[in-house]
Amino acid sequence: MDRESLLLERLKRYGQSENYPFHMPGHKRQCKDFLGEFPNPFSIDITEIEGFDNLHHPEGILKESMEWAARIYGANKSYYLINGSSGGVLSAICGVLHPGEKIIMARNCHKSAYHAVILNNLKTVSIYPQIVEKMWINGEISANNVEKLLSDHPDARAVMVVSPTYEGIVSNIQEIAKIVHEKGIPLIVDEAHGAHFSVEGLGKVQEEKRIFPVSSIQCGADIVIQSLHKTLPSFTQTGIMHVKKDYVDLERLEWYLQVFQSSSPSYVWMAGIEKCIFEMEEHGKEYFKEFGKRLKRLRRSLKKMKCLRLLDKSGGMEKGIYDLDVSKIVISCRDSLIGGAKLGKWLRDEYNLEMEMCGVDYVVAITTFMDTQEGLDRLEHALLEIDRKIEQNGKMKASGWDMEKEIWCDHDPLSVMTFGEAMEREWERMRIFDCEGRISVEFVYLYPPGIPILAPGERITREIVKQIDYCRQMGLLVQGMADEKGEYLRVCKG
Amino acid sequence: MDRESLLLERLKRYGQSENYPFHMPGHKRQCKDFLGEFPNPFSIDITEIEGFDNLHHPEGILKESMEWAARIYGANKSYYLINGSSGGVLSAICGVLHPGEKIIMARNCHKSAYHAVILNNLKTVSIYPQIVEKMWINGEISANNVEKLLSDHPDARAVMVVSPTYEGIVSNIQEIAKIVHEKGIPLIVDEAHGAHFSVEGLGKVQEEKRIFPVSSIQCGADIVIQSLHKTLPSFTQTGIMHVKKDYVDLERLEWYLQVFQSSSPSYVWMAGIEKCIFEMEEHGKEYFKEFGKRLKRLRRSLKKMKCLRLLDKSGGMEKGIYDLDVSKIVISCRDSLIGGAKLGKWLRDEYNLEMEMCGVDYVVAITTFMDTQEGLDRLEHALLEIDRKIEQNGKMKASGWDMEKEIWCDHDPLSVMTFGEAMEREWERMRIFDCEGRISVEFVYLYPPGIPILAPGERITREIVKQIDYCRQMGLLVQGMADEKGEYLRVCKG
Repeated sequence: MDRESLLLERLKRYGQSENYPFHMPGHKRQCKDFLGEFPNPFSIDITEIEGFDNLHHPEGILKESMEWAARIYGANKSYYLINGSSGGVLSAICGVLHPGEKIIMARNCHKSAYHAVILNNLKTVSIYPQIVEKMWINGEISANNVEKLLSDHPDARAVMVVSPTYEGIVSNIQEIAKIVHEKGIPLIVDEAHGAHFSVEGLGKVQEEKRIFPVSSIQCGADIVIQSLHKTLPSFTQTGIMHVKKDYVDLERLEWYLQVFQSSSPSYVWMAGIEKCIFEMEEHGKEYFKEFGKRLKRLRRSLKKMKCLRLLDKSGGMEKGIYDLDVSKIVISCRDSLIGGAKLGKWLRDEYNLEMEMCGVDYVVAITTFMDTQEGLDRLEHALLEIDRKIEQNGKMKASGWDMEKEIWCDHDPLSVMTFGEAMEREWERMRIFDCEGRISVEFVYLYPPGIPILAPGERITREIVKQIDYCRQMGLLVQGMADEKGEYLRVCKG
Repeated sequence: MDRESLLLERLKRYGQSENYPFHMPGHKRQCKDFLGEFPNPFSIDITEIEGFDNLHHPEGILKESMEWAARIYGANKSYYLINGSSGGVLSAICGVLHPGEKIIMARNCHKSAYHAVILNNLKTVSIYPQIVEKMWINGEISANNVEKLLSDHPDARAVMVVSPTYEGIVSNIQEIAKIVHEKGIPLIVDEAHGAHFSVEGLGKVQEEKRIFPVSSIQCGADIVIQSLHKTLPSFTQTGIMHVKKDYVDLERLEWYLQVFQSSSPSYVWMAGIEKCIFEMEEHGKEYFKEFGKRLKRLRRSLKKMKCLRLLDKSGGMEKGIYDLDVSKIVISCRDSLIGGAKLGKWLRDEYNLEMEMCGVDYVVAITTFMDTQEGLDRLEHALLEIDRKIEQNGKMKASGWDMEKEIWCDHDPLSVMTFGEAMEREWERMRIFDCEGRISVEFVYLYPPGIPILAPGERITREIVKQIDYCRQMGLLVQGMADEKGEYLRVCKG
């Protein structure tokens, strides 16, 4: 290892490069204007000493700080998270459900939700999100579906959904919460991508004309997990969990929070979390007003594209979209012949713009109020120019690509045993074509839409074998299997 | 919340105070000389973008970096930990044992080990550490005891111990590893407090005359978890796990590492970890040679104390000590009339010296090579002066305090069900005096020695009831119960 190859040196060089980040973290490495000079992190990195406090048994300044946060967010309790939203999701699910109980869970949940299900050996019922057909991305969770599943599964002890999704699709949490509470059980919302939804509601005066949807904690959800680093100026790996106590055993939840989070939590992170919330409460609304205007201009301009297409809500919501986070710039290239990876590379190589995610036929740019006008201008300019070039080169198809109709998977999975049981079973390795009728011990994910087509404990049908094969032939990403080539699957033995 | 009350502002003020830290983190907030100027952490806080890598599925620079670390540490695999040693301990135990299996575990393990046992519903057999009678602190784990328990429990699937302890007591890991491997199972060592043991062994040339014991990974342990922040210059919440693969299923272990650690790991932390290891490999030996000399002078001087007493290894090891970490300055006040809390307060109030821990009748100061000579001098001066004052005031007892003989608890616990089963049972609240014969659903800890006198699933004997009552009467810390006053216990219902 030489000094120049050190991660630290690479990061310093990257920070000085021309690359502009349309990805997390939300501070966009431009923290000075908003947060002021941050001290050398070593100089403020302490442990639980006299005068400070213990995150896992707070009695002093951390207790006060988290009580203050709960107050301004309108929760009964708020908890700072230093092992990311992952730690929050694990704690929420394990804290609400006892081993062996049943959860109704959106199929597009983050993997940490699946991890919690496995750790506590829970039974699961999947809710598939709606489809945004125009783009073939995961849409909202329908309140009707939740209602139906709750009536089919009266033994369910909790419901968990993701809102907003990675692409900014928001579900009708108010309606879902009402339905869930009628059964006397809690609703958990993974709002990792929507921490900024809270900003316009912080403090006493509420904005009348909002730019962003209302946070789930105001819509009646019982546990809401927000990543602070994704869309606000806080360090990567930090988050906050808000809880309403009516349907939640706080003692059990807190027990799991200290299981899944280090017993040496970082004071640098906790100070960063608190500072972020403080500045958002003080100045967030002004910044967001300005940000809203900039987004409006950007989105208006991007709607002029002819080959590329912006996911938008103007002119009425699309089917599958209850509401939209307008700070996510989702660009579909379904109508052009280039794929998402190519578009992402084009933006990186020729414009030094780094996207958050490149799907098969779309890219996602995350914008936050920390973006500079210059940055947004560069994105606008680049996309318009690329769009023109695609048009000039005639690389446009006559009609949209409808392959997804073939592969979109929303069958009810045939769950034979819990994920947890399956993962502890003896398994054998088998060619996918021979797997029909067997029980998987692995996850198989498709991108897009980025949800498991198969999960541990589920019976493998002929339809699933065909889908996996079709996707591989089409060059789509099939992930999750231990066999990286995707030819073999692990199934229960015998 | 006003700006001056922000955690960040408090930390800045604390950093400028006269207080000198004889506690974690090991960088002692004096990082400049060793690590150079650290950049604004926001400026290097990125996510998994092109050119960087994914901690949980490393293929690029993180893979290379962790392979380099494994090479210089002499492991088959090393993993950077960003959820503290806690995340490492959880992963190690869950990664090695399947649900329901049996582990032989030192009774003085960190709570994260107990958490893993509960999550995976493991059966446990406790090994009690030896007693260092001179000070009544937890001593080494005896290899003979391990051998006996392994022969009594041939179905045990792993052994887990802590070495060094919080007070710096080291066990004979070489001998224990040999015994454990004869049964074909792995040995896990929580070496959270001994990351500095590796430094003299880093790189090609080994030191002949070592200051510190050899790391467990060189002594044959299979999984070794080190906190980097405790004794080396790395950020709080960072660590490293070293693995030898002979008795460990790496795939299973890695699966749990991505469960218990955020899917958005901090690049600031990872860069800090790598930088720390790099500088230790480059310059560690020179620094440690100097540090060794300073420690020798300090310890020689502290041995002159008449009322206070330094835990030392000179003149042959005490019973219960296989080896000692000389960087832990453990000062017993058993022979004086003041307690540990009072001694700690005295050092803080009159000398601005902050201890790592104050027990009932001792304090622990953590020193690292980042300590300044001025800092060590202040500690020496303060302790000698306090010792003189105690002597002058005649606050010295004729003989040592032997209360612990009464309360030291090393009975074999009567385990009726696993911790995990007990914690999911319905419980009722009961006065401690009425608990005889019932099964606890809680932990009860005594400080000292800081190990559970009672764990969930264990039958409460008359002896235990008497011990808890005696300790409370003597004003000792009885912790872990939900009832903070320690009068009520939660026991299985019915």
